[in-house]
Amino acid sequence: MHNNSLLIRNVRPLGRNATDLLIRNGKIAAQGTGLDAAETEVINGAGQLLLPGLVDAHTHIDKTFWGQPWQRHQAGPRLIDKIENERRLRRELNLSAEVQSANQIRQAIRMGTTHIRTHVDVDTEIGLSSIEAVLASKETFGDSMTLQLVAFPQSGLMIRPGTRELLEAAIDAGADLVGGIDPGAIDRDPAGHLDCIFDIAERKQVGIDIHLHEADQLGATSIELILERTRALGMQGKVTISHAFCLGMLPDAQLGELITQFQALDITIMTHGPGHIAFPPIKRLYEAGVKICAGSDGIRDAWGPYGNADMLERAMLMGFRSNYRQDDELEMILDICSFGGARVMGEKNYGLDTGCSADFVLVDAQTPTHAIVSRPPRSLVCKAGRIVARNGECLV
Amino acid sequence: MHNNSLLIRNVRPLGRNATDLLIRNGKIAAQGTGLDAAETEVINGAGQLLLPGLVDAHTHIDKTFWGQPWQRHQAGPRLIDKIENERRLRRELNLSAEVQSANQIRQAIRMGTTHIRTHVDVDTEIGLSSIEAVLASKETFGDSMTLQLVAFPQSGLMIRPGTRELLEAAIDAGADLVGGIDPGAIDRDPAGHLDCIFDIAERKQVGIDIHLHEADQLGATSIELILERTRALGMQGKVTISHAFCLGMLPDAQLGELITQFQALDITIMTHGPGHIAFPPIKRLYEAGVKICAGSDGIRDAWGPYGNADMLERAMLMGFRSNYRQDDELEMILDICSFGGARVMGEKNYGLDTGCSADFVLVDAQTPTHAIVSRPPRSLVCKAGRIVARNGECLV
Ligand SMILES: [Zn+2]
Ligand SMILES: [Zn+2]
Repeated sequence: MHNNSLLIRNVRPLGRNATDLLIRNGKIAAQGTGLDAAETEVINGAGQLLLPGLVDAHTHIDKTFWGQPWQRHQAGPRLIDKIENERRLRRELNLSAEVQSANQIRQAIRMGTTHIRTHVDVDTEIGLSSIEAVLASKETFGDSMTLQLVAFPQSGLMIRPGTRELLEAAIDAGADLVGGIDPGAIDRDPAGHLDCIFDIAERKQVGIDIHLHEADQLGATSIELILERTRALGMQGKVTISHAFCLGMLPDAQLGELITQFQALDITIMTHGPGHIAFPPIKRLYEAGVKICAGSDGIRDAWGPYGNADMLERAMLMGFRSNYRQDDELEMILDICSFGGARVMGEKNYGLDTGCSADFVLVDAQTPTHAIVSRPPRSLVCKAGRIVARNGECLV
Repeated sequence: MHNNSLLIRNVRPLGRNATDLLIRNGKIAAQGTGLDAAETEVINGAGQLLLPGLVDAHTHIDKTFWGQPWQRHQAGPRLIDKIENERRLRRELNLSAEVQSANQIRQAIRMGTTHIRTHVDVDTEIGLSSIEAVLASKETFGDSMTLQLVAFPQSGLMIRPGTRELLEAAIDAGADLVGGIDPGAIDRDPAGHLDCIFDIAERKQVGIDIHLHEADQLGATSIELILERTRALGMQGKVTISHAFCLGMLPDAQLGELITQFQALDITIMTHGPGHIAFPPIKRLYEAGVKICAGSDGIRDAWGPYGNADMLERAMLMGFRSNYRQDDELEMILDICSFGGARVMGEKNYGLDTGCSADFVLVDAQTPTHAIVSRPPRSLVCKAGRIVARNGECLV
């Protein structure tokens, strides 16, 4: 057998005509019908649908309860109730962020996810312990999962002195980006909060990915402040605004002006298709050329019981919430849950073309939309040319 | 072996303590630990979660594309676009409503559904052919699925002369209830439409289940007209309003007045937790004692690609849309997707108590909420004492 090679026969890339796929040294080395199988392990793709590896571009793998005895959820309705409930549960349950992040990564691999950007809590109570735990998981999974860490001040930044220093230390320890959260609603000092994280990003030469749940004009004002700093510091292409619920609430003209600036400053918008509140108008942003990615957000954690780390289910929820009923629209959503996430994570060799890294998933579905609405077990998941899941089971 | 008997060991009814369940002659004959297994087939429940049979109290099994080659969805955004697109596709695809309804019923059985109320199209183009097809499926499935039919004027009633007579003929043919649709928005003659269907219901002595998508005050006015007729004709307990989106849009005081009347007139509200528009505030209605049931609505049909006839997934979507994150809230939703549906369908012997019809489903989950968010394959589905699905496969 040829070293590190694999031939997958009869698969339909994104629903196109059936082809064979030759994988060699972690890459898609060739595709076409009737490829030579000499000295190569052969897998029969049986005409199944081939999708690029799914990308979960926003989650919180340090905090999931996945794999633990069921926790009854009892947190109150406000954001601050949930943040405080989480801090309380964190003390009481004393779960290992390394074990929990590994549990979610394995579940994600089962579901065909090959890339994760995760926000990891940093605060004055736990310091860098979650960052270190997730970095350890990143090491453990190695080539099986591409993992980016955002140092995330979940409990606030300006209101918790010492957090700024911890964010910087998190970057030094290996976090890839600096995070932020609701500079107006939580810190009540939007300029101070944003100056702080942009300053860290500039000095450490990392990107920014900020949680922005703020509604209406409060959110719009925070976005304006983010755009100003992105322009002033020349950080085009390095800033992601996660959630940006306010984009689903603004007058049309104001939304249009923000969209123009997103294009000019190469801002990425992340949405997870929340259940109950407004969220960015995906198609409008997408068609205007704004970069969009998607993620699970929290999976079965102190914030709520939902989620299973399946980006096909996330695509279904995003389509369902947007009232997208046409195949074209759900194909756009799938593009966001794959190529959109890979783009924000800076992956250069992502995709199903020859030469790309062999990151893909095979499912028994007729078309991409059929895969999204039916979400069958993933028959085969390949990461960097290695089979990491088969018949719905994680092999890592 | 004792005739028609079955002993299921070690199951946890709705998450309570483990017990055994003795099934005899289609009923739960006894429960407790250490029941005598002599002369009885024994199944090891392995401590799994036992739920009552799920109830899909609103769907359209005559119209699903389930089991057919994938249809790309291209209908326009308006209600009338979708109705016309459906009529066009119906002519072009020429699917058999008998085959299609059987496909959906089998899928529902796989998912642990034991009861379905389905709305069946009746119009001047297809006449009673879909009613007859679904009645044939009802006959085919017999005891394996409890099926109620609503004769449904999807394409309008007053605007399509001849439809009234067809609705009456549908009841005579075996439909269980008379349906209606948007008396103001589609027929543009709310009083005429409602007088017509209430007259049929009164003369034929059947219940009413009306689709009401109308928004805001238009919907509220239609509800008032429905309530007036329910009172005048003494039809308390026989009227269901499906969707009732407007209940999620009204001023609080107006909603409160309608709730008082729903209680007084024993009205049932059906919701499916739509993806993109307002819908009834479930907890508020439930806590006020208003009867609520839930359903899949259309599954993979001309209206859109979503849905899989899984009422646990429906429960997840309803909770997700309502921002219900507490276990108490999701247990309420599960109650609506089981007992709520059984109630509107007039089932007297439904539930997990001794003496009830043996309609239940077993899943590998820790708690009801865990079952809703994880939706594992159904290990065992029992209908009237007979095993109809096992390990996710329909046996009927
Ligand atoms: Zn988040
Ligand atoms: Zn319907």
